Amino acid sequence: MNRILLNCDMGESYGAWRMGDDEHAMPLIDQANLACGFHAGDPLIMQRSVALAVRHGVSIGAHPSYPDLQGFGRRHLACSTEEVTALVLYQLGALDAFCRAAGTQVAYVKPHGALYNDLVRDDALFAAVLEACARYRRGLPLMVLALADNRRERELAAAADVPLHFEAFADRAYLADGQLAPRRLAGAVHQDAERILEQALAIARGEPFADIDGRPLQLRADSLCVHGDNAESLAVLRRLRAQLDAA
Amino acid sequence: MNRILLNCDMGESYGAWRMGDDEHAMPLIDQANLACGFHAGDPLIMQRSVALAVRHGVSIGAHPSYPDLQGFGRRHLACSTEEVTALVLYQLGALDAFCRAAGTQVAYVKPHGALYNDLVRDDALFAAVLEACARYRRGLPLMVLALADNRRERELAAAADVPLHFEAFADRAYLADGQLAPRRLAGAVHQDAERILEQALAIARGEPFADIDGRPLQLRADSLCVHGDNAESLAVLRRLRAQLDAA
Amino acid sequence: MNRILLNCDMGESYGAWRMGDDEHAMPLIDQANLACGFHAGDPLIMQRSVALAVRHGVSIGAHPSYPDLQGFGRRHLACSTEEVTALVLYQLGALDAFCRAAGTQVAYVKPHGALYNDLVRDDALFAAVLEACARYRRGLPLMVLALADNRRERELAAAADVPLHFEAFADRAYLADGQLAPRRLAGAVHQDAERILEQALAIARGEPFADIDGRPLQLRADSLCVHGDNAESLAVLRRLRAQLDAA
Amino acid sequence: MNRILLNCDMGESYGAWRMGDDEHAMPLIDQANLACGFHAGDPLIMQRSVALAVRHGVSIGAHPSYPDLQGFGRRHLACSTEEVTALVLYQLGALDAFCRAAGTQVAYVKPHGALYNDLVRDDALFAAVLEACARYRRGLPLMVLALADNRRERELAAAADVPLHFEAFADRAYLADGQLAPRRLAGAVHQDAERILEQALAIARGEPFADIDGRPLQLRADSLCVHGDNAESLAVLRRLRAQLDAA
Repeated sequence: MNRILLNCDMGESYGAWRMGDDEHAMPLIDQANLACGFHAGDPLIMQRSVALAVRHGVSIGAHPSYPDLQGFGRRHLACSTEEVTALVLYQLGALDAFCRAAGTQVAYVKPHGALYNDLVRDDALFAAVLEACARYRRGLPLMVLALADNRRERELAAAADVPLHFEAFADRAYLADGQLAPRRLAGAVHQDAERILEQALAIARGEPFADIDGRPLQLRADSLCVHGDNAESLAVLRRLRAQLDAA
Repeated sequence: MNRILLNCDMGESYGAWRMGDDEHAMPLIDQANLACGFHAGDPLIMQRSVALAVRHGVSIGAHPSYPDLQGFGRRHLACSTEEVTALVLYQLGALDAFCRAAGTQVAYVKPHGALYNDLVRDDALFAAVLEACARYRRGLPLMVLALADNRRERELAAAADVPLHFEAFADRAYLADGQLAPRRLAGAVHQDAERILEQALAIARGEPFADIDGRPLQLRADSLCVHGDNAESLAVLRRLRAQLDAA
Repeated sequence: MNRILLNCDMGESYGAWRMGDDEHAMPLIDQANLACGFHAGDPLIMQRSVALAVRHGVSIGAHPSYPDLQGFGRRHLACSTEEVTALVLYQLGALDAFCRAAGTQVAYVKPHGALYNDLVRDDALFAAVLEACARYRRGLPLMVLALADNRRERELAAAADVPLHFEAFADRAYLADGQLAPRRLAGAVHQDAERILEQALAIARGEPFADIDGRPLQLRADSLCVHGDNAESLAVLRRLRAQLDAA
Repeated sequence: MNRILLNCDMGESYGAWRMGDDEHAMPLIDQANLACGFHAGDPLIMQRSVALAVRHGVSIGAHPSYPDLQGFGRRHLACSTEEVTALVLYQLGALDAFCRAAGTQVAYVKPHGALYNDLVRDDALFAAVLEACARYRRGLPLMVLALADNRRERELAAAADVPLHFEAFADRAYLADGQLAPRRLAGAVHQDAERILEQALAIARGEPFADIDGRPLQLRADSLCVHGDNAESLAVLRRLRAQLDAA
């Protein structure tokens, strides 16, 4: 089995509002994607989230978003490519300040929500995010969705001289091309713990698993995106962590 | 005459709103205090302001503020010291991202508006800002108000191992202790160009000048805070630049 | 026993973040103080909160705040009195739009957080809020803290021709003058359900109860501010509702 | 010549930032479309803008926007229809609070920027805005773009029982169907004062004028959208006002 990492969206509280159970999930993961203030995460929460990640030896990724607190970054916002480069740089630097203050640095960038989704469709937007990574620090990786065929992403990233990390999902059903099945489709989100663990281990081993239509799909992923915001998802996460560590 | 620098608050546009005349003022100054998004300055404006400063060889300072776009950072906001450290780090890092992308780095920190004013009165707040500077990068200077006696500031900064830059104002009347005369007092703001130039040159030479009551006041300053947002202030700034260069 | 009302701060979710358990608390109260977007409550949440209140026949109060989502309206912000009148009018009208669309109207105004606290100390600010009420709709009441002596509030309100509603707290300890004991004091918040119910019933009956030093304090209140955001507070609220209904 | 009205987007300053020259333009127009805080216009500016309009006997329209200060409401934001109804109601009520406090009321609604543009393409969004108008106050009109054929708009509005006001532009070139020529096309915006006045008077008289390809286009409009934010546009506006008054 390849050594696959576990990444989780974290630091998504804001002011008086709590989201997630970062205290319990942090010890179980390898990479924390931390909100940077545009969809969640105010300065104090970012500072505390970085401290928590450092305490558990977890790698810190910037999780930048369109500026949309009200919509939690899930609504497409028609930004120019120049705006996207600038808003990724801004959030990346803001988070890195807390990392530097804690003796570490941002290890990678994973766009959030609608921005993440828009990258799949829009080469110019993808290039704008790549430019932010490349200009911020040579060698800073961008995390994107592992597809059946990632040639497009590899070519765009190579042109920008940005390393890519590929992530896959254990609790989401996939279309044949490796895109996530839209949430409106029945069966788009796996509820069953066994099914989630099975898909996670298949991806970790680089083996095929069933897409939403039952056909075999094989993905090459460096990291699995996991959730740990309630008792149920934490239980699955604990089992997954144990199985990966045992492998 | 000492070599005194000229600093100017810049990058204070936001979205579709323009403020200042940075294009014309930038070639005349040494240090640009750039807004970081909390009182002015969105990511795109920050990116362009950094590019403009770099083009003219102007040193870049972070100009962090309380989070208050509506009040332009001029309203006191009761933040905890932990919040202040975090909000300075956040803004400092965000601006530094554009600096790094442009091949330079933030050279100093000068708090804005109400936050700047609150430092004079509140040791814990001052220490919180110093902590942000020290933790972000060893040796990163903080710019504060030059007073008749800056022992308090020097002691607090020494304890935090942060260098201080002292700034003075050529267009503001002073109280006897070197505090700025409150704007509500008659004569608090100099309107006359000759008076402004005279005070500027006295401060540059380290010589005494008249405070608001006509008594001599002597300040030791590293930099003069200037304005260049309209034709009149630009004209004064051009003359001041010429006189300093000629000295 | 006088017929005392129960009021509760509600609609304090924002975007993807949940706060409170309005679904379960709403059927138990008489007056819902709904956030208006400045400390919590986006337009969609306001629309749904109004619908929920209407469904349960609960009176709707505007709960305006300083503009401070990040600080949940709990941080003092140095606004001018003109700004305070304007920000109360703005939030009041915004909430009333949803009330009108639902066939009802805002029944009263209760300032939130730091704005509420600042009213106690600052006559000009109090007058600014009264002005907003008076100008919005003749007869629109303002809800303020019941004190041992409310002459100051009555005089200011009479001058502005604004009716006052007085509220008291069953779960907070009081100083001798009827101010709430600051939270930093030991015993400032009652944890014991029996103690809370006892204080509630004493206030409801207009009888004296023990202040934080054990001395008798008597308050004349129209409404009790209650909480219903977790299982424990809901349990107390259910018992209080039952006892008041039985009385 | 029909009696055509002149409307103008106003109140688009924010905090310390100024936009437009409302003082000089207000006396020349009939209808002021006032920003409501989501793309421009904080509470204080709204209060003052309403007072200015009332002083000049100008009718006040709500000018609601997607929540996007940074983008001045010009960027499409993927809101649900329920969100759109709620954000229009929110802004409409907020502005109406200042109108009520000034003894008047919002007279119509004209969506701003990207929201205005999106209405043309999206029936569900159009219906969502109509619903906000209808639920706020029976008979409250919505202002939309006059096209060569407005049957679609008339049908949707009739279904919602909302009166429509149609507006046209004197300084914009038109496509054959009455859509505004996109700004990226050469000649999309008229710069020549004579050309603008000529088109204005043709529209006022209900006579045909030349579209962007020189073919005759006839529009039935109730109001002309004008600009008065600089000396040049104010000069054109003064001449237009004089010619309409003389007619």
